[in-house]
This record gives sequence, structure tokens and C-alpha cells, in this order.
Amino acid sequence: MPQRLSLNQKTTNRWSVQEAVDGCVRAELTSIGLWREPVHEVGVTQAARMVTDAGLRVSSLCRGGFLTAEPGPERDRAIDDNRRAIDEAAALSADCLVMVVGGLPEGSRDLAGARDRVAEAIAALAPYAEERGVQLALEPMHPMYCADRGVLSTLDQSLDMAEPFAPDVVGVVVDTFHVWWDPAVEAAIARAAERIASFQVCDWITPLPADTLLSRGMMGDGHIDFRHFRRLVEAAGYDGAIEVEIFNADIWAADPDDVVALMKKRYAERVLEP
Amino acid sequence: MPQRLSLNQKTTNRWSVQEAVDGCVRAELTSIGLWREPVHEVGVTQAARMVTDAGLRVSSLCRGGFLTAEPGPERDRAIDDNRRAIDEAAALSADCLVMVVGGLPEGSRDLAGARDRVAEAIAALAPYAEERGVQLALEPMHPMYCADRGVLSTLDQSLDMAEPFAPDVVGVVVDTFHVWWDPAVEAAIARAAERIASFQVCDWITPLPADTLLSRGMMGDGHIDFRHFRRLVEAAGYDGAIEVEIFNADIWAADPDDVVALMKKRYAERVLEP
Repeated sequence: MPQRLSLNQKTTNRWSVQEAVDGCVRAELTSIGLWREPVHEVGVTQAARMVTDAGLRVSSLCRGGFLTAEPGPERDRAIDDNRRAIDEAAALSADCLVMVVGGLPEGSRDLAGARDRVAEAIAALAPYAEERGVQLALEPMHPMYCADRGVLSTLDQSLDMAEPFAPDVVGVVVDTFHVWWDPAVEAAIARAAERIASFQVCDWITPLPADTLLSRGMMGDGHIDFRHFRRLVEAAGYDGAIEVEIFNADIWAADPDDVVALMKKRYAERVLEP
Repeated sequence: MPQRLSLNQKTTNRWSVQEAVDGCVRAELTSIGLWREPVHEVGVTQAARMVTDAGLRVSSLCRGGFLTAEPGPERDRAIDDNRRAIDEAAALSADCLVMVVGGLPEGSRDLAGARDRVAEAIAALAPYAEERGVQLALEPMHPMYCADRGVLSTLDQSLDMAEPFAPDVVGVVVDTFHVWWDPAVEAAIARAAERIASFQVCDWITPLPADTLLSRGMMGDGHIDFRHFRRLVEAAGYDGAIEVEIFNADIWAADPDDVVALMKKRYAERVLEP
């Protein structure tokens, strides 16, 4: 039984929380990564009950973030929404709240400024998260998303931003899809050590699908050496969940139980030792 | 008259070498960046005569590279082809030969190995380039091309690879499209100093076009602060050509003279001081 493997519910995008929970139980998985929108559909209390009743652990809640707005009403709304996300992560006893920090504001070309505002927003949110026992997990995004989704582009940059805070308050996500290309990633993972809040796996496939938001592949379908990254995070001391989060139109069109079965197979073949 | 502005002929993709040379003269440009394929169509000697007769300088020749193959016939062919490219750059008196180093070999997931083989190939080519007075210009490619086009992903990584060689033998390309997202780019450009062989500008546009090889935009159409990068390379000591290289289906469909006129306008507005 794959004790560390976790199904991020985006991988089986058409499943509701209850269906994803049931799918995990059928597949003998012990962890699940949840998204806020499907959780809201049933209510946080009910979703928490579903996972608890099934004996599952919530390896992550996606997602907080989108914190690059200039000071003003939009930024205030973002901070409020992130506080709600922290409350939800606490209610779900999630291992962490994944933070996708947001891209450049409309019309802005001030990348350094956007990055500074993310750091300020994290500082504003950290005490709230700490009080509720929630770890914020800064997710470096692949640089192709820098303009429109996430101005945190490398693991080192995320660690620099996390550094002022205790590791159990602000950690980082190591998602192979986002960081596999980075020539400094080995050193950065070693540096991350106890700040690794989440380890996510999915593959980089070519040619890149037309919609780059749906360009992630099942492990083994692309170019990433997953065992290498699993060994790196383990050497850094990480022994938590290994979560599979795949945005891909073909995978979303397939039968979710088949996707979970394939995920388990590829996890054994490609992520664990051969 | 924009003395430093150079038209990379890819920006006016349908023009032959002679047409691009004539277009530069009409627009009062003094430099051109050439590609090997159109140069081969007329022959290197003839192409060299065209640019000399027009009083133009060749700011770059694109491209050498594709050096990630394992030892064997494919790698031997790549080395031979790069020697020919060096000869062509010498015949054209090009300021540099741009090196796009290549992606992972078919089926390989050994990124570190591919990067090591590039370093070995550069060591094999450097003496040949030095004898002919040609500067090899290592081009870090945007990480979205890491798997299939260029395993050099950051300017720092390119500088590490260039370090064993004299700056006039192995330099680097600073192309805003490829490096704008990098949180370490300011320090890397300062570090690059006299190794900056070429400074190329084009914009990062969103949403990313479906064909990511054609996803570059005219300056001002996207998210990059060009003045910031021009100041950085100048502060590092670079005073050479500022070359505009745009792969974009809409720009390729437009009248090339109109594209050159727009390029001059945007260069003045977006790259130079306002």
C-alpha cells in the first residue's frame, strides 16, 4: 500500500470531494490534496468530516496567494481571502496551504515591485497562520508563468522569502514540474531542509500543449527523473506525502478510477525505486 | 539614426539576406543579425559581400549548438557542423556565433549529463573558434525550452560554463525574452561584464501563443521592462548592438518594412530613454 502517495484532487478534476475521497479509499490511498472551490461546494465542515470519516489525511489545501496587487481594495480583498483560506486549512487539518503568489498586475512591468509586495503580504499573513497552526507553503512556479500566475520563479527565491519566518509557519513547495529545469535546484532542495512543506510530482511533456495551464503530464510521459527528486527531498529530511497534481485535458477526460490506478503504477515505477 | 539597433533577420522571416540587407539600408540601420539557412541559400561569400557592400555590420550569426548527444556519430556530426558555423561567422565577420545548446536527447531524462556534454563540446570547439577570431555566445534559453531546445537555462549557468575560456572566445547572450523572469539576473548581468557578446530584445506576451516557439512579441506588447535591462547591460560595460529577434506568426505575416518601422519606433520608446 503506497503510504506516502497522495491524490491531489485536480488530477481527477471531475470528482467532487466525496467522490475523490471515495476514490482514494478504493485505491487504498491514505492522503488527499484538496482545492478550495470543490471544498466550498460542500462546505468546509462537511468536507473535513468526509476526509476524517474516511481516515484520510489532507496533504495540502490549494490555494492561497494572488498577492501582487498594489495597496488598495484589491489587495485588501486578497489578504481577507487568504485569511479565509488559512481558516479552511486549519479546519481541514491540512499539512499546508499552498500559496500561488500571483503574476504582474494588469499593465505593470515592475517585476521587482510585485515580488516585494508578495513578501510584504506573507509578512502580514504569517502571524494569522501561526496562530491557527497552518503552514504557508510558497510555491515557486515555472518561469513560463511569471507574468500571469506566479512571480516566485525559483526555489532559492522562495527560500529567501520564507527565511524571516519559522519553518513551520512559512515553508516551500517542491513541485517537479516547476523546478526540474533549475541548475541550482539540488543545492536549493538541500538548503530547504525542514522548510519543505509539500513534494508534488508530475511530468514535463513535449511538445507543450497549446494551453500551458494544462501542460502537465503523468509521471513517465515526459522528461523528468522523479527518483532523483525524491532522493533529493529525502536527503533534505522530507518524509511527508508525495502528491500527484496533474492539469491535463486528456487525463481529465479519462475515467478517474483508471487515472488513479495509472498514478499508483507510475508512482511505483518512476518515483519509488525500480 | 539608431546606431546600435540591429535587425535580426528572423524578425522579417520572409526576407532573403539581400532583401533584409536592403530593408536595413532603407531604415538607416547599421547592423544585421543573420541566420545560417538563408545565408546558405545565397552562399556565405555572396552574403558577406552583400552586407559589406551595404556598409552593414553583422551583429550575430545564428546559430551553432545542439551539442547534447552522447559520444557517437550524431555528436561528431554536430561538432563538424559547429566548425562550419564558426567558419561562416568568420567569413561574415560576425560579432559572435550564437549557440543554442540543444535539449535532452530522445528518451533521456539525464539533464545533468546533457549539460556536462555541452560543456565538453564547448571545450572541443573553443580552440577552433579562437584560431578564427570568432566569439561563441552561449545563449541561456527560457526554462520552458529546457527539454527540447536548450538545457542552458540561466545566465549564471551560462557564465559558469564560459568561465574556463577567455571572454573573447566564449561569451554569453542576454536575451530579455529568455532571462527577464530570473530573480538572479541583475547580479548575473553584472557578473557577465565583458562576456556579454550579444544583447537581444523582444517581449514576453500573454496569453502565450499555442506554438511556444512563436511566442515572442514586439517590445511594448508584453511584460518586460526593456530600459531596465538596457541599463543593466550598459552598467556591465556592454556598448554593442541591440538586436531585435522576434519569432511571431502575426509579425511574420505583416509587411516587413512596416515591421522594421514599428521596431524602430518601439526601440526609441521602450528600449532607449523615454
